[in-house]
Amino acid sequence: MHVLITGAAGMIGRKLTERLLAEPELGGRPVTKLTLHDVVTPQSASLAAPTPQTSILPIVGDISDKVLVEHLIAEKPDLIVHLAAVVSGEAEADLAKGYAVNFDGTRLLFDEIRKAHYGARVLYASSIAVFGAPFPDSIPDDFHLTPLTSYGTQKAVGEFILADYTRRGFFDGIGIRLPTICVRPGAPNKAASGFFSNIIREPLKGEEAILPVPDTVRHWLASPRAAVGFFLHAATLATQTIGPRRNLTMPGVSVTVAEQIAALRAVAGDKAAALVKAEPDETISGIVAGWPQTFDASRASELGFLADESFEAIIRTHIDDEHGGTAPIQA
Amino acid sequence: MHVLITGAAGMIGRKLTERLLAEPELGGRPVTKLTLHDVVTPQSASLAAPTPQTSILPIVGDISDKVLVEHLIAEKPDLIVHLAAVVSGEAEADLAKGYAVNFDGTRLLFDEIRKAHYGARVLYASSIAVFGAPFPDSIPDDFHLTPLTSYGTQKAVGEFILADYTRRGFFDGIGIRLPTICVRPGAPNKAASGFFSNIIREPLKGEEAILPVPDTVRHWLASPRAAVGFFLHAATLATQTIGPRRNLTMPGVSVTVAEQIAALRAVAGDKAAALVKAEPDETISGIVAGWPQTFDASRASELGFLADESFEAIIRTHIDDEHGGTAPIQA
Repeated sequence: MHVLITGAAGMIGRKLTERLLAEPELGGRPVTKLTLHDVVTPQSASLAAPTPQTSILPIVGDISDKVLVEHLIAEKPDLIVHLAAVVSGEAEADLAKGYAVNFDGTRLLFDEIRKAHYGARVLYASSIAVFGAPFPDSIPDDFHLTPLTSYGTQKAVGEFILADYTRRGFFDGIGIRLPTICVRPGAPNKAASGFFSNIIREPLKGEEAILPVPDTVRHWLASPRAAVGFFLHAATLATQTIGPRRNLTMPGVSVTVAEQIAALRAVAGDKAAALVKAEPDETISGIVAGWPQTFDASRASELGFLADESFEAIIRTHIDDEHGGTAPIQA
Repeated sequence: MHVLITGAAGMIGRKLTERLLAEPELGGRPVTKLTLHDVVTPQSASLAAPTPQTSILPIVGDISDKVLVEHLIAEKPDLIVHLAAVVSGEAEADLAKGYAVNFDGTRLLFDEIRKAHYGARVLYASSIAVFGAPFPDSIPDDFHLTPLTSYGTQKAVGEFILADYTRRGFFDGIGIRLPTICVRPGAPNKAASGFFSNIIREPLKGEEAILPVPDTVRHWLASPRAAVGFFLHAATLATQTIGPRRNLTMPGVSVTVAEQIAALRAVAGDKAAALVKAEPDETISGIVAGWPQTFDASRASELGFLADESFEAIIRTHIDDEHGGTAPIQA
């Protein structure tokens, strides 16, 4: 089985790659080849030590470049995981880049797969940013799409093309609307949602983190491991029963910032929790006030997609995956 | 005031042109210039006798051609009415053409207006095809967009770009989700909805018309005159109070085919009604079974958009506009 991952150098892409190299099988079929695309060369500990069963082809280039996209699809990968995207803050700051990558790039990729027309499974990383305020307390699967950012607009457009091309039989697509990913490892990216991860990741290392919003803020979260799990589950899901609504809101954990900090205290003690410093930022608070808080992700749950069990479980997953099971600060 | 109409040779475009030439004023400002775009030279009785107050510039070309679109926006028209589109049946039959005109063409046009960035009012002809079954009995303004045709997909994409570019201040856009237009004058186009007009238009001329669906079918209709009225109203609407949801479902008349025929009988007598011949067509019946029946178009109604008063009024409007007030067949 040949798997293509676009945006493979990003956080989810790296973790998905490592998982596929560690367990090179999907639905009983061996993963024999991984094509890893990004604008930079994908880096991964596993790439340095290739496994005998899976060959790796890194391809570097811009997803909005037609020649590159033709090259990506030329070998007709069985599974395509389309993660390549400009994140929300950057898509808002740089209109042309956001539309080029998130809109034109997605269109180009889906069109090449359409032209090849060989029954590919296509998984598309969408986002809860396709939804816009005002929201009900719990957002149902059939809530209307009214994106309030350019990023959300671009992701929604990709969802529509995916659904149309799947309906017409060009490929077999599933749109995965990811919750906000937490705890993100490494350095912050340009997303305004960075603090949801910062207030856990930094204290676990014994470092201070700034909380720019009131601790009453509630949001919808999933661990990187859960996100990788969504794509692995979708890779072999029986799609006959999904129906024409091919874009699915993924299950998540709905918590307030206060509940996040309480979980941090439970896992890593008062000393860790005390490293979260409130420094209200009206701009960030204003942005976050318009964000969704809780979803009723019934359709995805019925299709077998699994959320993290709790926010404490999310923290423990982070400690497992990023600190080898033992954080510098312990309760 | 300079008005650009794309797709000006189409039915709505011709009627809008004629209305603007007959009453060359919008919100107290004289209409001094009309730029009329289409893939064919716009034909209009009024064009042959130009009025002294309004100059007319016809431009022929493909809306998916960047050079043409640059040319359309070069003079910075104050009002842009974007009607150019491939209709639903053709967009389904010819995927490439539908995406080129309805998707790429709309994107190109909106991008040129964005780059010029001069505060244009942009009116976009969308469609109730952005919605997909299953439907509630009455479809609310916040019903989710799940198009089930390529045409509906392309129209929904245009709605999203319009909303995003308006939110970012590049122009001042309003999306007009038109009901099915009835009674369409002239020859049928490729739309599967043709019979809604055929069963009125043909009998009024003393000719037979085929009814391919059960007379219990209910649908959402507006006259061509009402449709022109939507665009004229939107042209000068105070947009500050609309909010970020810039795409509006227009008010219409919800009737069954049996009610359509009863209205025909009331206006033109038994002889006209008897010219409607039932010839069930399973393909058309199947397509129409998935169509919306009734909308609660509260937002547009509150903003002052006006539907026809009844289906009888729609028939009388057709007789006024197409037969000079007297149909060949009278009750």
